[in-house]
Amino acid sequence: MPSRTQITIIGAGPAGLTLGHLLQRAGIDTVILESRSRAYVEQRQRAGILEQGTVDVLRASGAGARMDAEGIRHDGIELRFDGESHRIDFPALTGGRSVMVYAQTEVVKDLIALREAPILFEAEALDVTGLDGTSPEVRYRHEGVEHTLVSDAVVACDGFHGIGRTALPSPRVYERTYPYSWLGVLADVAPSCEELIYARHERGFALHSMRTPTVSRLYLQVPNDTDPAAWSDDRIWDELATRMAVDGWSLATGPITSKGVTPMRSLVSEPLRHGRLFLAGDAAHIVPPTGAKGLNLAVADVTLLADALLRWYRKGEESALDAYSGRALARVWRAETFSYEMTTMLHTDPSALPFDDRVRRERLRRAVTSPAASAVLAENYVGAPFEGLWTVP
Amino acid sequence: MPSRTQITIIGAGPAGLTLGHLLQRAGIDTVILESRSRAYVEQRQRAGILEQGTVDVLRASGAGARMDAEGIRHDGIELRFDGESHRIDFPALTGGRSVMVYAQTEVVKDLIALREAPILFEAEALDVTGLDGTSPEVRYRHEGVEHTLVSDAVVACDGFHGIGRTALPSPRVYERTYPYSWLGVLADVAPSCEELIYARHERGFALHSMRTPTVSRLYLQVPNDTDPAAWSDDRIWDELATRMAVDGWSLATGPITSKGVTPMRSLVSEPLRHGRLFLAGDAAHIVPPTGAKGLNLAVADVTLLADALLRWYRKGEESALDAYSGRALARVWRAETFSYEMTTMLHTDPSALPFDDRVRRERLRRAVTSPAASAVLAENYVGAPFEGLWTVP
Repeated sequence: MPSRTQITIIGAGPAGLTLGHLLQRAGIDTVILESRSRAYVEQRQRAGILEQGTVDVLRASGAGARMDAEGIRHDGIELRFDGESHRIDFPALTGGRSVMVYAQTEVVKDLIALREAPILFEAEALDVTGLDGTSPEVRYRHEGVEHTLVSDAVVACDGFHGIGRTALPSPRVYERTYPYSWLGVLADVAPSCEELIYARHERGFALHSMRTPTVSRLYLQVPNDTDPAAWSDDRIWDELATRMAVDGWSLATGPITSKGVTPMRSLVSEPLRHGRLFLAGDAAHIVPPTGAKGLNLAVADVTLLADALLRWYRKGEESALDAYSGRALARVWRAETFSYEMTTMLHTDPSALPFDDRVRRERLRRAVTSPAASAVLAENYVGAPFEGLWTVP
Repeated sequence: MPSRTQITIIGAGPAGLTLGHLLQRAGIDTVILESRSRAYVEQRQRAGILEQGTVDVLRASGAGARMDAEGIRHDGIELRFDGESHRIDFPALTGGRSVMVYAQTEVVKDLIALREAPILFEAEALDVTGLDGTSPEVRYRHEGVEHTLVSDAVVACDGFHGIGRTALPSPRVYERTYPYSWLGVLADVAPSCEELIYARHERGFALHSMRTPTVSRLYLQVPNDTDPAAWSDDRIWDELATRMAVDGWSLATGPITSKGVTPMRSLVSEPLRHGRLFLAGDAAHIVPPTGAKGLNLAVADVTLLADALLRWYRKGEESALDAYSGRALARVWRAETFSYEMTTMLHTDPSALPFDDRVRRERLRRAVTSPAASAVLAENYVGAPFEGLWTVP
């Protein structure tokens, strides 16, 4: 005998949890299926930069208390190249907008803590059927037993490797890979900077970020298929110091507690809807991490979708559901473009035409010398206001 | 017995003629060698858009009278895609700067008319020697006889196929080609627009420009190696109308008087100096025509170089000559970047990754929807003020 809910959400990452939270606040029943354990979900290291729009949605929906207490507002970033540092001042360039440093792990913990209905952890979604009818079904396995969940609509927030993307018939997929990866480390050391440092160096890209006042997050551009074990702690610190060097600045070092290699990918799968199936977040689009857009796009997607589902339930507005894919994709392509630009202008690419490589470096120079170009970078980094606030009746 | 002058200029295009003109105004003797005939040089169809800086230099040096009488000031361009037209307002976005529509052929005629010393037309430069000494020599053939010209310095303004670029030892060459060309036509018909129209259409790029109130200049993106004869006048007009179509606008047609195919190339040869040899204009850098930068970069180069040569002659400042290459190249790379961006965002490229093609289209959308991005386009189109005005003592 299948069980029933209003909206089935596959995936308990930022997209699924935020959607479940917004719909819970609106009195709509949801079930969240998550293939991993709660501990895994709460600990996986991902993004750490929240756009103003993400901050606004979490705060307005009652999920912002700890973020406001522990998150750190950032009013700019540093861009370093040719041994010089340049600051991009977000509020000055965007009419007062900024970003918040608050790790995805913490957002996830906060949203799980606020959840009233249960989340089925270690529940593996197997397939989605009946998309063209009014009662789509999700079959899943939980504690060794198969179940079926019937609902009014299914939202796949199950990431790049999830079943959502493949359940949507005949998607158009746009994709690019990059000839480099990031070696990322967590270190128990106070950050050597107050704001993020993005550095382009002839030896490759480096990024200094932070998680808390005592935990630093740092990245190095490395070749694809790099084995993290090949990088000793000393080698990592030396390379970071070399790539970020400017006069009068030094990099504090400390114990490295985690080390991993992340490949870079850009991907968009269109459309984001088929019948009663909707895609959101990484299930539909991937960005390289350089622009810090992944989590923010996920929250933007579900903010729009929560609004559309509310209109549909409360007012019978089918048009809101129809508009979701196109409206979300407009933002997605803006962010994909920005992420591609940030990635290519900050990394070195020995496989690129030397002409193209020079043009990319010139774009970086323009971004710090032309106030208009600085503003383009800033407005994309902080992100445009979100559409369809969940609070809209 | 070799003859002697102060500065030998190879090439009577916009770079060589402007340099000869500025130095003539400053009382410095020059000889200009030009391999083609005067009629050829005065009639070859090239650029038609003068940046504010080019206008300023021609005017300040006494070469702007006819330009001011017959040229047409343009305060913007139209960008068309997805059946809609968007205007980029130059003065509003750049603090009052604009461009002038005045054909290269007319600039060339004006400068030739102002020349007091002769120009040796049909004089083919054969080689340049003695670059590392103080009296470099240019060997050339004129009316079947070989001559040698000795001078204090040689400036190669002889274009992409000239001897200047190859005379410079071990240049670093940055180059990219494009998988499309322009089919350009001149037509005896009043322009169907007051400002230039740049259109991106799924069938390819189209551009509506003009030479005079009764002569239109139009371009179509075509595959490389297209034979202009394969394009009948009717087919050209039909294709132009299709690619530029927006509601409420129609394209006037008329007799096509000239038809040609131009390939697209980006190229920079560094440095711009070796000893007493200097490169300027197309001899050192090529841009695709999309951003209208070719002639303007040539004039910017020689404005800077004329200033450096004056400082050297009058004050013995070797440092001004030393600085020429780096200062000129800073502007060159800004313009190369802009030309590359204008080209790639406006053309369709079936050989590109579909992801990259979407990103390029998205950049076009951003250029008309983000005021900051519009300002980046505008400030690059009108160009930054020139450095080193020839009038500087």
